[in-house]
Amino acid sequence: MRLLRTICLLVLPVSALAQHPLTFFTRAEATSIKNDLARYPLLTSSFKAMKQETDAMIVKEISVPFPKDPAGGFTHDRHKSNYMLMFNSGVLYNLTGDVKYANWVRKMLLKYAALNPALPKHPQATSSSPGRLFWQALNDANWLVYTGMAYDLIYNTIPATDKKTIEEGAFKPEVDFLTKDLKTWFNLIHNHGVWACAGVGIVGIATNNKDYVDMALYGTDKNGKGGFLSQMENLFSPDGYYTEGPYYVRYAILPYYLFANALNHARPGLKIFQHRDRVLQKALVAGLQQTNIDGRFFPLNDALKEKDYTSNELVTAIGIAWDVYGQDRGWLAVAKRQNRVILNKGGASIAAAMVREKSANLTFPYKTVEYGDGANGREGGVSLLRNGANEDLTSLIYKYTSHGLSHGHFDKLNINLFDKGNEVLTDYGSVRFVGIEQKYGGRYLSENDAYAAQTIAHNTLVVDETSHFGGNEKRGERYHSDKVYSSIANPALQVVIAKEENAYDNVKMLRSVYMLQLASGRKFIVDIFNVNSPETHQYDLPFHYEGQLIHTSFRYEPYTNQQRPLGNKNGYQFLWKEAEARVFDTTVQFTFLNNRSYYSISSWVPDSATLIFARTGANDPQFNLRHEPAFILRKRAASNLFINVIEIHGKYDPVMEFSMNAYPSVQRIEVSQNDKEYTIATIMIDGKRLMITQSNSVFEKDRVHSAGGVQWNGPFNVTFDGKNLN
Amino acid sequence: MRLLRTICLLVLPVSALAQHPLTFFTRAEATSIKNDLARYPLLTSSFKAMKQETDAMIVKEISVPFPKDPAGGFTHDRHKSNYMLMFNSGVLYNLTGDVKYANWVRKMLLKYAALNPALPKHPQATSSSPGRLFWQALNDANWLVYTGMAYDLIYNTIPATDKKTIEEGAFKPEVDFLTKDLKTWFNLIHNHGVWACAGVGIVGIATNNKDYVDMALYGTDKNGKGGFLSQMENLFSPDGYYTEGPYYVRYAILPYYLFANALNHARPGLKIFQHRDRVLQKALVAGLQQTNIDGRFFPLNDALKEKDYTSNELVTAIGIAWDVYGQDRGWLAVAKRQNRVILNKGGASIAAAMVREKSANLTFPYKTVEYGDGANGREGGVSLLRNGANEDLTSLIYKYTSHGLSHGHFDKLNINLFDKGNEVLTDYGSVRFVGIEQKYGGRYLSENDAYAAQTIAHNTLVVDETSHFGGNEKRGERYHSDKVYSSIANPALQVVIAKEENAYDNVKMLRSVYMLQLASGRKFIVDIFNVNSPETHQYDLPFHYEGQLIHTSFRYEPYTNQQRPLGNKNGYQFLWKEAEARVFDTTVQFTFLNNRSYYSISSWVPDSATLIFARTGANDPQFNLRHEPAFILRKRAASNLFINVIEIHGKYDPVMEFSMNAYPSVQRIEVSQNDKEYTIATIMIDGKRLMITQSNSVFEKDRVHSAGGVQWNGPFNVTFDGKNLN
Repeated sequence: MRLLRTICLLVLPVSALAQHPLTFFTRAEATSIKNDLARYPLLTSSFKAMKQETDAMIVKEISVPFPKDPAGGFTHDRHKSNYMLMFNSGVLYNLTGDVKYANWVRKMLLKYAALNPALPKHPQATSSSPGRLFWQALNDANWLVYTGMAYDLIYNTIPATDKKTIEEGAFKPEVDFLTKDLKTWFNLIHNHGVWACAGVGIVGIATNNKDYVDMALYGTDKNGKGGFLSQMENLFSPDGYYTEGPYYVRYAILPYYLFANALNHARPGLKIFQHRDRVLQKALVAGLQQTNIDGRFFPLNDALKEKDYTSNELVTAIGIAWDVYGQDRGWLAVAKRQNRVILNKGGASIAAAMVREKSANLTFPYKTVEYGDGANGREGGVSLLRNGANEDLTSLIYKYTSHGLSHGHFDKLNINLFDKGNEVLTDYGSVRFVGIEQKYGGRYLSENDAYAAQTIAHNTLVVDETSHFGGNEKRGERYHSDKVYSSIANPALQVVIAKEENAYDNVKMLRSVYMLQLASGRKFIVDIFNVNSPETHQYDLPFHYEGQLIHTSFRYEPYTNQQRPLGNKNGYQFLWKEAEARVFDTTVQFTFLNNRSYYSISSWVPDSATLIFARTGANDPQFNLRHEPAFILRKRAASNLFINVIEIHGKYDPVMEFSMNAYPSVQRIEVSQNDKEYTIATIMIDGKRLMITQSNSVFEKDRVHSAGGVQWNGPFNVTFDGKNLN
Repeated sequence: MRLLRTICLLVLPVSALAQHPLTFFTRAEATSIKNDLARYPLLTSSFKAMKQETDAMIVKEISVPFPKDPAGGFTHDRHKSNYMLMFNSGVLYNLTGDVKYANWVRKMLLKYAALNPALPKHPQATSSSPGRLFWQALNDANWLVYTGMAYDLIYNTIPATDKKTIEEGAFKPEVDFLTKDLKTWFNLIHNHGVWACAGVGIVGIATNNKDYVDMALYGTDKNGKGGFLSQMENLFSPDGYYTEGPYYVRYAILPYYLFANALNHARPGLKIFQHRDRVLQKALVAGLQQTNIDGRFFPLNDALKEKDYTSNELVTAIGIAWDVYGQDRGWLAVAKRQNRVILNKGGASIAAAMVREKSANLTFPYKTVEYGDGANGREGGVSLLRNGANEDLTSLIYKYTSHGLSHGHFDKLNINLFDKGNEVLTDYGSVRFVGIEQKYGGRYLSENDAYAAQTIAHNTLVVDETSHFGGNEKRGERYHSDKVYSSIANPALQVVIAKEENAYDNVKMLRSVYMLQLASGRKFIVDIFNVNSPETHQYDLPFHYEGQLIHTSFRYEPYTNQQRPLGNKNGYQFLWKEAEARVFDTTVQFTFLNNRSYYSISSWVPDSATLIFARTGANDPQFNLRHEPAFILRKRAASNLFINVIEIHGKYDPVMEFSMNAYPSVQRIEVSQNDKEYTIATIMIDGKRLMITQSNSVFEKDRVHSAGGVQWNGPFNVTFDGKNLN
């Protein structure tokens, strides 16, 4: 039997053998990996896991059911596992030479060839881009990517008649549907578009169809307005920031890398990995910088908070990047957590490196970094301010990007704080239970747009209980915030100043974030938020936090016996009002405990303000929301200055039962000047003065300023106990 | 200088050198450990950590402040760290021979000798047993335990006049206070009493004071009614269950082991470790069995949920037990997580074993086990039903104990479920932030008694919105539940039946818990709760769960725009009512997701019932409560049968985005007979019948029953798809 299989292979014409595979790896690459399989433990275990799973499945009857269910349902999951299984089988055929894997793929492809031509629109389709095998076209594109590679991987084993059947039956209807019926969608500059191009392009390479590949590269009209190259030009900034944010770069990086990898073999002349000054390398690095030390992606825009860099997408991207971009030790730390590699040249090489670096303490090199947004990098951006090493890392995310397409949130000038691996000032992420059929088929839930995307769900200013840009995505897409200045070279004093002047009519916002560490080791974030308007407004500045309230410096009225929502629209209706306080001319403080650290927010209150404790969960009839607390500062004014100092302090150990430095060291906040020109604030810390003088209108680096008896260079000056910190 | 120190030691009389130290270790033991210090990595690192910490502290000025603050405050924490530092310094003196450690302890002891005689009652004292150095006498007893050992460890270096000063100034006032002023408290059978006896006894051994040791052993009147031996007789059942529950055995095991260890050296004739058929060994084993796979103690009674077996108490107990009871490989798994050892013979031996077992996969041998409660083991008890290995372990805790002294909760016939390391059906634990000064000095908060101890906070029956025994501790102490039958030999079918007939007047409860695993691998808990009364009552059966609500089979009215507490007393006032449903003649189901598994509760509803979704957090003006969900079944009836099937199913992976078996396989519950004699229930599972026939009055093992067309032996019979599972 084994002999017969071998003969089958040998009688195929040599030319066909030479041309395929090309998409995932080449024949030479496969041979080299084969030789390494037993050599490097991580490669061995990755191979064995794939083989074991595949062997268990391919003995079962092939199931290609008529599409019926939404995500999480039987037919959805079956088609999803089918394409992964076909791809894995194709890889295994090349690595083992066992033709049973190839035959199994061929048989399944023939079933798809029978099913696909007559498929109607999916019965569960609700999106504007409905699918055929799945409820949305995006999943059909996923299917094309992996099924295309599977076909290519076993191409040399398929009789010519079957090839025709498969190419015309399984692939053509799907490609036609995406490129004709959904032409507009196919040409969109959006993560769906990347998947669609990758799918059609990979199938093109697998089926030797130049037309498909050209449409994939340059759009259906082959004019470069749509297509993969345009996706590479327009969705990334020059430094690799992906406009939809870290959660979606995690998703989009897969088709980018898989299609680029296939093009690298099939059209080496394109030099796709060098394209745009290696933008795909930058994208990967930027994506990884936008993670917490536990590997989870920062939950900006629509984002599932559980998603981390051990996901299949990142395993694949790193396996490809390692080979084409050279070995990056930071990626090795990621690969170690992933604990598996893809079975290509890069994966084998990572597995070899892991043996060399066996006892090394691999950590990902998180650093302070800023990314511009937009194709030209000048549509706002995001600053990641970092301080501390390894488990003690503090990361402040200051977001002043453009809207971020359809998954963007109305969160101009938002800040988030991670510390010691914990999310401290939080972003709700998205309201979605991906893959869970009972929760609307795993799709985004209505509370996603109604709450999670709204401004009140973020740590930034809400004017008159309406969201930025009136919560209108199209209006939001037209504008972006702007960084006006930043200084990030000194880890003990990192400053970013950004402005937003379009989110509300006649309201200008300037938020200055100072992240500093004093000689005592204590870390502070001084958040100076200036808002100016000719008319009186209600200004709400929320701090969504994770943790247990420990202490407040002020008395409040708790709603102990009855709770009502905070408002009735724009996300406010999802917050229960738990307590309220009215405070006058003071510095208010509240301390909470998150895991084993204390955090205090000290807020300057001139005149009067209302303070609100709120919690998500109101107006949630389906129990779709988590119940998370927020502290909201509310002011009525035309113009207003918010100064909040977020202090990281102390240590709590419930096992050893000790509590250290549980009290904030900030004592008082005073403002001696605040106008269009300058803000001068003094923060008393353990009896010493932290003084911040800041220009509000002139941000040139070398300009000399003089105010409040202080003279300084550049937009800001910080002194502590009389000594300059700049 | 070093020479001078050595001479100092040598000129002390030989007899004194021979007698001390005795409490923590002997001189010979110290010498042997000294030789091992560099030999075993875990011993080396434990020694280095202690030395580093101590070296950093003893160069600072000695601070013995006048007591002022509650727990978490400066003076509290200072005295607490002082006694640990003195003990550690004493150990280091013996292991390094460096007299600086001894001198430092002596100096501090002299400061205590000056402070203690004139101390008034602590200004923050609020308990019935106030302390002097601390707010409560319990902490003063802790001080005596460690300070007594410290004194003993450096005894040989202290000039005679200083000895007199320290014994009369530092120790005598404290011992007198505990044994005279707080005589009743000292003689109490309670964890406080164990600490008090250990403190006075260890000081007695350290100061060669027979009177102290005798009071510690036999009570202040030396008649054996109080004292350590009585504590050993009365607080444990014969199989080692500690009546206050796992959280407090974790605490009490320390003075038990430390004093027993000292007695083992000082009064070997007592054979204290063999006492009562090695009850201290059994106590340690039982304490460890009452943990989750992450090492956390089951949160029965007043319990901090974070507390796990890496705490100092367990490190100490295992370090002593390892030597006196022989090497237990299960303890090694625990020691590995603890990642440190105490610096005695046992600790050194564990460190040596760790080298031998370096590459072994050490796991604690969790098993199904039942413990009786009470000195005779016949005051009810607890069953821990287990199924599965390692990370896949399922643990059901069925509690039918006595009240458990002052930290007991009103939770007769309560069940809790842990699965795959997660708490699934939860116990609130205690409302307390131990060690955090801002939260009432780290003491138990008012919500502890008002909510956490009440019946509604547990997964057991509440009659007419009042707690068991009217929430009266004294009444609760008079009674205990009783197990009437159990069968735990077959992991696929474990059954425990227990009854409670005193918690409410004229109400009899019989709860039968079946934990079973079918051939498909799915695990189910069938919970048959029979309640009988001549009068009509409101019966509430809550299931407090951890997780995200995924689906309900029934329609409910959600309180989306206004929330009110569920009731106004006995704990009900702390629950917000989130939703309510009225259901008729049906099987209702609700599914939630906890971490990466699905759980469904299917409930039989004959006639009608009210279903309530509630959440803790109402009437909590200080924000002391966590916000956790509960599902409550409410029936109005004289007698009622609740049948609930808790099913563990499926798998969810948000990183890989798959969801498997998200639906329960239970379809319907039917009851064909329910009366004083028998309950016969049928549960339809994927189209097959699971049939449980149970006697409600005759529990002898070999009795033959016949009902509903079935004939069987013993109290119950279970068939699935026509085949017997017994």
